[in-house]
Amino acid sequence: MINYPNKKTKFIKNKTNHSNRGMSFENIINETNEYYLSHDIAIIHKKPIPIQIVKVDYPSRSGAVIKEAYYKIPSTTDYNGIYKGKYIDFEAKETNNKTSFPLSNIHFHQIKHLESIEKHKGISFVLIFFKALDQIYLLETKFLVKYYKRSIEGRKSIKYEEIKENGYSIKEGYSPRIDYLRVIDEIIKKG
Amino acid sequence: MINYPNKKTKFIKNKTNHSNRGMSFENIINETNEYYLSHDIAIIHKKPIPIQIVKVDYPSRSGAVIKEAYYKIPSTTDYNGIYKGKYIDFEAKETNNKTSFPLSNIHFHQIKHLESIEKHKGISFVLIFFKALDQIYLLETKFLVKYYKRSIEGRKSIKYEEIKENGYSIKEGYSPRIDYLRVIDEIIKKG
Repeated sequence: MINYPNKKTKFIKNKTNHSNRGMSFENIINETNEYYLSHDIAIIHKKPIPIQIVKVDYPSRSGAVIKEAYYKIPSTTDYNGIYKGKYIDFEAKETNNKTSFPLSNIHFHQIKHLESIEKHKGISFVLIFFKALDQIYLLETKFLVKYYKRSIEGRKSIKYEEIKENGYSIKEGYSPRIDYLRVIDEIIKKG
Repeated sequence: MINYPNKKTKFIKNKTNHSNRGMSFENIINETNEYYLSHDIAIIHKKPIPIQIVKVDYPSRSGAVIKEAYYKIPSTTDYNGIYKGKYIDFEAKETNNKTSFPLSNIHFHQIKHLESIEKHKGISFVLIFFKALDQIYLLETKFLVKYYKRSIEGRKSIKYEEIKENGYSIKEGYSPRIDYLRVIDEIIKKG
C-alpha cells in the first residue's frame, strides 16, 4: 500500500470571475460537485489524472518529489459518484466549435465505458460546453453512442442542432454553478 | 479540458507468482477487477493516485514529461464502481501486524467518505490484508466507523479477533483472485 507523503497542495480557484468564459469548465464542474457534497445532495468527484511515475526523489524529510512522470491515456471517464442511490458517471468536454462537437474529443474506450455503465443500470452522460456560444448541454450516452456509430462511416462530429434537439440545456447559475442533477432527476423520472 | 499527450505506458503485472505474499495486494485487487470487467460482472476501477503537477517539459513531439510533481493526500478512496446497479466504494489496506489493524492506516476523511456513501445508499467497505497471516477480510463501513469512534478515546486499532468476528473472510482463488463481490451478494441479500 502506498504511503502518501505529507506534501499537501491546494487547488487555487478563480473565485472572482463568474462567467463560463472566464473560468475553466473543469472548475465550474468541481464547484458544482463541491456544492452537492457540502449540501449532502450527491457524492461526485473528479478522478485524478492518470500518471505513470518513473522517478521519485526524496530531497528532505518534508516529502517526495516526482522528477519524471508521464501522462497516461485515461481508461475511464473524469467524474463518477453516487446520487439518490444511483451510480453516476460522466465525461466533460469543451469545444471552440460553434456548429458541431467533434467526436475526436472522446476516446473510443470512454464511450465503451459509458455504454457499459448504462448496461449495469448506472446513469452516464457527457457534458458538452460550447465555449464560443457559452452554452452547456447534457447528452445521454444513448445519443453519444448513436452518433459515434454514425461517425464510423459518416460525419465525425455531432451537429450543434442534434445536441440541442436530443440533449438538455443547462443554464449557469450561481450556486450550484451548473445544476446538472436537475436534469438527472428528469431522466430518473422518465425511467 | 486537458489534452493527454500520446505517451502510453503499460502496467507490468507479476503473472507467475500466485501467492498473496508474492504479489502486491493492489495487483491482486486489480486482477480481480479486470476479471469482473472482462466477464461483464461489475465495473470497478482503481482511481489514479492524486498528484499535483508543478512543471512539465516538452522535449520532443513524442509527448510531455512531468519534471516536478508532488503526491497529494487522497480525498476519497482507492476503488469505486458499479455492481448490480449499486454504487460500490472501498479502500484496501494491508498490515504486517498479526494481532490488530492499526487505524492510522486510514485517513479520517476516508472514513467520513465511506460513511457518506452508506448514507446515500451505496455499498462501502474496507478490504484488509493481514500479510503475515495471509488472510483477507472485508469489513463493512458500519464496523469501521464503530471502531474508529472507539479509537478517539480508546485503543487505536481493531483487534484481529474483532475483524474475524464482524468481517467476512475472503479466500484467495485463481480466477477471480479474491472474489469480494460474493460477499457483497450476501450483504445485498441481508438488505
